[in-house]
Amino acid sequence: MSTLTATRIPQSAAGFTPPRITQELAARSAALCYTDLPEDVRLRVRQCLLDWIGVTLAGACEPLVHMLAEEAREQGGHAQATVVGHGMATSTRQAALINGAASHALDYDDVNMACTGHPSVTLIPALLALAESRGVSGCDFMTAFAAGYETMCQLGLATGEAQYARGFHTTATLGTIGAAAASARLLQLDADDTASAFGIASTMAAGLKSMFGTMCKPLHAGRASADGLQAAQLAARGFTSCADAIECPQGFIATHGGNASLETATSDGGWHLRNNLFKFHAACYGTHVAIEAARHLRLRHGLRPEDVRCVMVRVGAASEGVCNITAPRTGLEAKFSLRHTVAMALAGVDTAGMDNFNDDAVRRPDVVALRERVTVELAPQCPGLTLAEVVIETHTGTLLRQRHDSGHPAKDLHEQQQRLENKFRHLVEPVLDASEVDELIDLVCRLDTLTDLSPLAGMLARRSCARML
Amino acid sequence: MSTLTATRIPQSAAGFTPPRITQELAARSAALCYTDLPEDVRLRVRQCLLDWIGVTLAGACEPLVHMLAEEAREQGGHAQATVVGHGMATSTRQAALINGAASHALDYDDVNMACTGHPSVTLIPALLALAESRGVSGCDFMTAFAAGYETMCQLGLATGEAQYARGFHTTATLGTIGAAAASARLLQLDADDTASAFGIASTMAAGLKSMFGTMCKPLHAGRASADGLQAAQLAARGFTSCADAIECPQGFIATHGGNASLETATSDGGWHLRNNLFKFHAACYGTHVAIEAARHLRLRHGLRPEDVRCVMVRVGAASEGVCNITAPRTGLEAKFSLRHTVAMALAGVDTAGMDNFNDDAVRRPDVVALRERVTVELAPQCPGLTLAEVVIETHTGTLLRQRHDSGHPAKDLHEQQQRLENKFRHLVEPVLDASEVDELIDLVCRLDTLTDLSPLAGMLARRSCARML
Repeated sequence: MSTLTATRIPQSAAGFTPPRITQELAARSAALCYTDLPEDVRLRVRQCLLDWIGVTLAGACEPLVHMLAEEAREQGGHAQATVVGHGMATSTRQAALINGAASHALDYDDVNMACTGHPSVTLIPALLALAESRGVSGCDFMTAFAAGYETMCQLGLATGEAQYARGFHTTATLGTIGAAAASARLLQLDADDTASAFGIASTMAAGLKSMFGTMCKPLHAGRASADGLQAAQLAARGFTSCADAIECPQGFIATHGGNASLETATSDGGWHLRNNLFKFHAACYGTHVAIEAARHLRLRHGLRPEDVRCVMVRVGAASEGVCNITAPRTGLEAKFSLRHTVAMALAGVDTAGMDNFNDDAVRRPDVVALRERVTVELAPQCPGLTLAEVVIETHTGTLLRQRHDSGHPAKDLHEQQQRLENKFRHLVEPVLDASEVDELIDLVCRLDTLTDLSPLAGMLARRSCARML
Repeated sequence: MSTLTATRIPQSAAGFTPPRITQELAARSAALCYTDLPEDVRLRVRQCLLDWIGVTLAGACEPLVHMLAEEAREQGGHAQATVVGHGMATSTRQAALINGAASHALDYDDVNMACTGHPSVTLIPALLALAESRGVSGCDFMTAFAAGYETMCQLGLATGEAQYARGFHTTATLGTIGAAAASARLLQLDADDTASAFGIASTMAAGLKSMFGTMCKPLHAGRASADGLQAAQLAARGFTSCADAIECPQGFIATHGGNASLETATSDGGWHLRNNLFKFHAACYGTHVAIEAARHLRLRHGLRPEDVRCVMVRVGAASEGVCNITAPRTGLEAKFSLRHTVAMALAGVDTAGMDNFNDDAVRRPDVVALRERVTVELAPQCPGLTLAEVVIETHTGTLLRQRHDSGHPAKDLHEQQQRLENKFRHLVEPVLDASEVDELIDLVCRLDTLTDLSPLAGMLARRSCARML
């Protein structure tokens, strides 16, 4: 009687053969080996992991994460994987969900513009849960992370901006397929099963940009990670799906936006991991460019708040549905407010400090007064989310102008490591002892040499979130 | 430090105030009481449950359900809710996922054209799991089912056909919100929390029509049920979301298709439950209309296969991406093939028999020979999926023509009950004893009088799926 055994084979419409995106990306992802990763790419992977641990340990204290952890306790599950900072272990899928949400809760995690989103928060939670439950080496973990990262960005080249413009949160949608790629690689699936996992993930992928500013945004990252993990595990069991799910008629691209073209590498032919952008301001990446431009003007001209008559922020139209909340009422909304973050920068408030994005800080009279003098203009000369121009008119009538581009990764990886370690210490100091902080940094530096990741998972297991309640 | 506490308040764009669909539907759903349900609507609810139990007990034997059950065993979970036919209990969410997939596995479950989809398979799995874990009365179960059903169809009036045409499987997308409505009603959430549940469900909603013919289609129903359940449970914990998620800019309708209009009732002002359509052929509902027309011609004119020179099936363009697989290779594909099912009807093969949709039956030479004489034409005069015209040319040159409309529900509920009980017996005979069959039918008939549903859940718990392996 059983009939549901078919995997639908791609059928091209009347003579037109679209690129075999699903198959190609699956084959690339399944074939990636540790020895393929250049030394600088390995360092970048370790930097992604370090940054992820920092934002996750800090994010684990957020109320939304407590709600998800409570929900997982109520549902139950084998103690397979650590829930970071909550003193509990649960099933791999629930751990990926909770840790993914925790890591995106502060919106302080890394970004890649090729996918217009946040790869690490969708990839690492699934991989950490799988690695912990199966005993996986550091090298295998890194390879699987790179496979997921490159897949997500390669797919992002076909779909990223178009999907994002249509209203989909690409961290969620592309992230589900990215997490499936990473999980499939860790599970050592072959190219066909990896393509099945992509198909299953394509039909699970969901998440709306209109949720920005609510608890659902971090939830998206957790769901992408947990669903991608499930897609890979189901594919490993022989669960069937479309073999051309991404590019087929009414498939993932047709329904969510993008072009069925197959560019897979960065413009210089290299690794997308080399374009990973870390955040050093605790707000939406779309605000960073204006923060940097405003900060530059304040420092160069010694501007005080009372010098400022008005401020014009010119940004791309893409900012409108992302980070242009006019009058934020909560700390979370402030992270998505160009006006507010520029006012913070001009008032000399530290935009790297998470405490400066709480619900009290958002009502600071000096910042609010400055914010009311900021106008945001959507400017066609600023495509994307990483170009901006800030023009300040002072009370003496002087016009100060600064352009900035936040789309370029750091050139000096050693300097970036120092900045990341500083950010990491700043994030985890409230929840870990100093010795633990040093040990974690050291463990991540030695990631390639670890034969399994339990020491790392063990260090994240303690109920550190309670310190912040 | 905690900032993620905001629920985003609806903001209307420049003077335009869209209908408050999210709030309105949530208020209606939260307010529904058992005493609001007319007697015939109560009977229809019981019929939906009986039919669901039948297709689920039979569907539970499918390989895809075994895979999902294995996955749940591996993940673990408290024994809160029965996995139908698998001799196991697991967490409410996993039970909803597995039972939802089982109930849609045979594509033999009920339909409502207002949502272009299958309400029961997304609603009942969540409700049964919740009811079992909390001790809920039959009346409360029925009220929650009606709340979910009406919400799903009310939303379907705004979005159904447009979303379906765009490539989304509305059983999955609208079903997630429907399941959230049903679960929220069972959890007795107020209107505001119900709206939050709708918001969370809106950003979880996913599922592509291009997956038809693979295991992912039934998975959609299970995911809709489990996700809707989770959305309601998270909303009950205070998890925040958009208060206008369905109609806001880049919200559910904007990203998935549909109009932000708020018609909530059927064209005659009544209950959508009154338009529920049960399936009496074991194939996609889009094929039923052509099966009925062909069957009518065969019986009226005493046609034998060798009389048929060629057959023209005229159906709506909507059929193209739904049930127009030209040359099915598997039993599952045959269920989505107008050509094949019409050939079965003309060959006198029982289209109600699931055994006639297995992988061997699809290669029957007499049916294949007939199938090769069937042409499908997409005809503008047949909108939707329920209108068709079948024209048969015989070898003697006679033209026989029959139109049919499968969009009308049964008028005689008593006759429908008999047909449903026959279908039920046919479905469950291979897996249950005769006494169990009678007892189940009786229990469902007495649903309104049950103080809790554990007797019902208990009868579904036994590992009956093994009989079919």
